Amino acid sequence: MVTDQLIEGIKDKKNPCIVGIDPEWHKMPECYKYGLTARGVVEWATNVIDAVADIVPAVKPQMAFFEVFGADGVRVHQQVVQYAHDKGLVVIDDSKRNDIGNTAKAYAYAHLAKSGPINADFMTVSPFLGTDSLQPFIDIAVRDEKGIFVLVRTSNPGSAEISEAANAQGEKIQNWLASYIHTVGRDCIGKYNYSDIGAVVGATFPKEAQLLRSIMKDSFFLVPGFGAQGGGVKDVIPCFNEDGLGAVVSSSRDVLYKHLEMEEYDGTPAMYAEIVRNQAKAMQEAVYQELSNYYPNKVY
Amino acid sequence: MVTDQLIEGIKDKKNPCIVGIDPEWHKMPECYKYGLTARGVVEWATNVIDAVADIVPAVKPQMAFFEVFGADGVRVHQQVVQYAHDKGLVVIDDSKRNDIGNTAKAYAYAHLAKSGPINADFMTVSPFLGTDSLQPFIDIAVRDEKGIFVLVRTSNPGSAEISEAANAQGEKIQNWLASYIHTVGRDCIGKYNYSDIGAVVGATFPKEAQLLRSIMKDSFFLVPGFGAQGGGVKDVIPCFNEDGLGAVVSSSRDVLYKHLEMEEYDGTPAMYAEIVRNQAKAMQEAVYQELSNYYPNKVY
Repeated sequence: MVTDQLIEGIKDKKNPCIVGIDPEWHKMPECYKYGLTARGVVEWATNVIDAVADIVPAVKPQMAFFEVFGADGVRVHQQVVQYAHDKGLVVIDDSKRNDIGNTAKAYAYAHLAKSGPINADFMTVSPFLGTDSLQPFIDIAVRDEKGIFVLVRTSNPGSAEISEAANAQGEKIQNWLASYIHTVGRDCIGKYNYSDIGAVVGATFPKEAQLLRSIMKDSFFLVPGFGAQGGGVKDVIPCFNEDGLGAVVSSSRDVLYKHLEMEEYDGTPAMYAEIVRNQAKAMQEAVYQELSNYYPNKVY
Repeated sequence: MVTDQLIEGIKDKKNPCIVGIDPEWHKMPECYKYGLTARGVVEWATNVIDAVADIVPAVKPQMAFFEVFGADGVRVHQQVVQYAHDKGLVVIDDSKRNDIGNTAKAYAYAHLAKSGPINADFMTVSPFLGTDSLQPFIDIAVRDEKGIFVLVRTSNPGSAEISEAANAQGEKIQNWLASYIHTVGRDCIGKYNYSDIGAVVGATFPKEAQLLRSIMKDSFFLVPGFGAQGGGVKDVIPCFNEDGLGAVVSSSRDVLYKHLEMEEYDGTPAMYAEIVRNQAKAMQEAVYQELSNYYPNKVY
């Protein structure tokens, strides 16, 4: 059960915060660039992983920023997943895939299967095509003891347009998806009472998160939108249960690209790694402290 | 305007039907397999493209079946897109990508940009995250004179779950998306009065298609679900306008994997190519004939 592994990482490191691996070319330090090639991305990503490996339980490579480099980038993505695994980290493949039937099965195999080319621990999945389109992802997750995070309510302003629409039973799509995730998750509950079927719930909608939390008691939330996108420390609290578990809060820009705001950055990989490490630590401290205030009896 | 190019192909070949390039490993003829590697996929795909290039205006490679092979598969995908372009075909990259902000921009760049690694003519995009998530795809499509097909109502049974939900204004998501597509498409109308912003509308819901057609007068529909998925010749008619344009009907299994039902198939690439060609021709004839019955004044 990969959620058990994630929880053990959170407890060990006293940290429910994770770092995105988003190689945005125009923001990356120049020291990692060898023309517009994927080569520097490997160096950059391994330096970032080295800088945060003892702080965070998981990393979240964003597939889009690797696809920009075509097949070379996808190869680097595979190397990055492997490198993070070698460092003992859980890997959440943020690729928001979705399709139907055999096509969905192919995506699930490609990203999640133990014998597949990526072999991530979790992947993000879009539910637009309906619950029958999610089943192949759930099947491979259950078979290979992996996990998925289904998009329920994302952090951007437009996420309300579909997530708040009402289905034939008058239920909001986000609440209906939450019930679905809760139900299918019951078949894959691990030893810490959390299932391997989770939800993406943005840090920018704390009220919605509170209701979704109450519907999906046993599910982990992947919480994007922290920091640069506007979600603050208090905003992510409703995503957690009283045990201090049930959510991983992800930050990319605030950790990876803080150097752009720092005049003192000297352009070296060493100082870049130090900034990344300090930012990851600051996020851990802020969220852990706030969680301790709200939930003094949390389990870590 | 890439829709103009698509329309010219449809008129030249008297064919609004296209063929999916879905390398489903367990269905592919053995003669294309060299162990579980991507090498045979190149041979297979080029043979399929050669077999249908003078019959269809476009091909639709399904990204998922290339991702199964990891970076090698993505490289083959790039080669297949290039090969189809060399043969004068329009390429619809069926990848159903979606994300927000810079991440959506990265996907749009990777799949659609003229200077990107794939450089497809169209790509399919999922709208789950809201209209702000679609904007980066529209921006790159407009900038590079490419097109997108937004998922509106897919061909699977579960597609009703979200597409038929009602938004805050009481409008069905599928109709609201149709209005949105119609509106944004007005800024990129080509010489044949069709825009570069299209919609995915399954062949399996002809009544819904008729209403969607009336909302999106200027948009092309990409129509999956024909044949193996249950959509028949009569079912696709509502996806067209009276000029006989406005839709491309896609088939994969019925064309690519008919050999599996044929005892007389001798296992050779030559006979496989002949079967593929015959199936593509049969589809052209059936749909063209039916369109001619309904719309005798169509423009081709």
